Amino acid sequence: MGRPPLNKDTKLCISLAARPSNIGTRFHNHLYEVLGLDFIYKAFTTTDIAAAIGGVRALGIRGCSVSMPFKEDVIALVDDVEPSAQAIHSVNTIVNDGGYLRASNTDYLAVQRLIDEHGLDAGGRVLIRGSGGMASAVGAAFRDHGFGSGIVIARNAESGRALADRLGYDYAAEVGAHVADVIVNVTPIGMAGAPESSEKAFDEATIVHAKTVFDVVALPSETPLIKAARAAGVHVVTGAEVIALQAAEQFERYTGVRPTAEQVAEASAISRA
Amino acid sequence: MGRPPLNKDTKLCISLAARPSNIGTRFHNHLYEVLGLDFIYKAFTTTDIAAAIGGVRALGIRGCSVSMPFKEDVIALVDDVEPSAQAIHSVNTIVNDGGYLRASNTDYLAVQRLIDEHGLDAGGRVLIRGSGGMASAVGAAFRDHGFGSGIVIARNAESGRALADRLGYDYAAEVGAHVADVIVNVTPIGMAGAPESSEKAFDEATIVHAKTVFDVVALPSETPLIKAARAAGVHVVTGAEVIALQAAEQFERYTGVRPTAEQVAEASAISRA
Repeated sequence: MGRPPLNKDTKLCISLAARPSNIGTRFHNHLYEVLGLDFIYKAFTTTDIAAAIGGVRALGIRGCSVSMPFKEDVIALVDDVEPSAQAIHSVNTIVNDGGYLRASNTDYLAVQRLIDEHGLDAGGRVLIRGSGGMASAVGAAFRDHGFGSGIVIARNAESGRALADRLGYDYAAEVGAHVADVIVNVTPIGMAGAPESSEKAFDEATIVHAKTVFDVVALPSETPLIKAARAAGVHVVTGAEVIALQAAEQFERYTGVRPTAEQVAEASAISRA
Repeated sequence: MGRPPLNKDTKLCISLAARPSNIGTRFHNHLYEVLGLDFIYKAFTTTDIAAAIGGVRALGIRGCSVSMPFKEDVIALVDDVEPSAQAIHSVNTIVNDGGYLRASNTDYLAVQRLIDEHGLDAGGRVLIRGSGGMASAVGAAFRDHGFGSGIVIARNAESGRALADRLGYDYAAEVGAHVADVIVNVTPIGMAGAPESSEKAFDEATIVHAKTVFDVVALPSETPLIKAARAAGVHVVTGAEVIALQAAEQFERYTGVRPTAEQVAEASAISRA
């Protein structure tokens, strides 16, 4: 359909990150064009998150995606924090309704939706590797979806134990002999550019024992872990699915329009090309 | 050349006004496209000018055009006020260099440039009708360009006398029998939508006596005053010239690129279509 020419009523959505990428900008602008919506989207960075969020409010910027390291700091700057963000004390989405800022966490919502869509059995045990902000979102999504039994694996004992305690899961420093029905990587292992880009977050024995291998790494989405799981015939959920679903969720909150799964997949592929 | 696709490094310029129009948005975006610059421009409004300017700084918004009623209020919010804005205590342009906000007034600069380009003789007398913010910019531009003799005509005796005093000019409540070499309308008389849209700011006798008739009304630029001046064979300077020149000046400050006179004329025509 094509985007209308820029005009005074065009709505602006932005992202805030210490190190912005082009993924969100491409994803959202592609869908605005496909759907003929009078919106534009652009990534920003800032050294003053309070003034930036103040600017979002004062300028009527419609939506604001929030990335590292601002996901906690913005909580004090908004008017309402939805349960999805409260649960993990971490915000990645702010919607501005006439100056009223509502914060949510679409990573959490996307993981919950993927648990549903992939039919993961909450009666099983989940093994989560990582203890950062995204691990917190993933863990809360599993626990809140009924997964009562789990282990958090993290080298950082302090953040690992704290997350395990919040979730009511066990803690371990190393994967070792631990196995589970669902194993989830929420570390940079396997990510392009990371020191461990060619490594797997779990060893072969743990992979083949799992019913589902879930990796949140999205660049590339075919990580060594996902490749190994596919090779072993284990069901996979990829980081590309997480990032596309959370972006679709943001998109709907900003525009009121839910893109189809095909449109999201296409926008996601284009945004990551 | 066409604008590059929106990306994280695309620079954003905005305007702030109580009642935004589409003129600036069309003007700047047209020139970005013609010149292949990685910029976008959009008009905004706000009810919190301090937070809006804080947002400009924190988000790294490159440029901000300022309209009524914010032209004075922003002075306290920027880091540097250039002489063009200091002279009249009124800002219409803010440039953001890495968080350092520099304010200027391109209306003042545009009027000075038009005085030059049209070769107006500073030895003559100038008659300025109006005493608002724009009249202040016009008056200061004439005075600072060497026009030592002038009259400010304004029904509002308080603001009229105050402006005349600041400029070192005379004051009169009505045009009456006053004549001058350059007569300038800086009121809404002749403006589309104004109550006096079909009237002239000066009567026939004053028009035919003038060497130059200058009208800052830009919509339409062919006001009854300009038409009467043309009919009488008097040299004219139109509001379309003022608005185009001040916008070109802003454009250069935001982008570092000076559009040609032809490009400005075309962008101006398109933006006002």
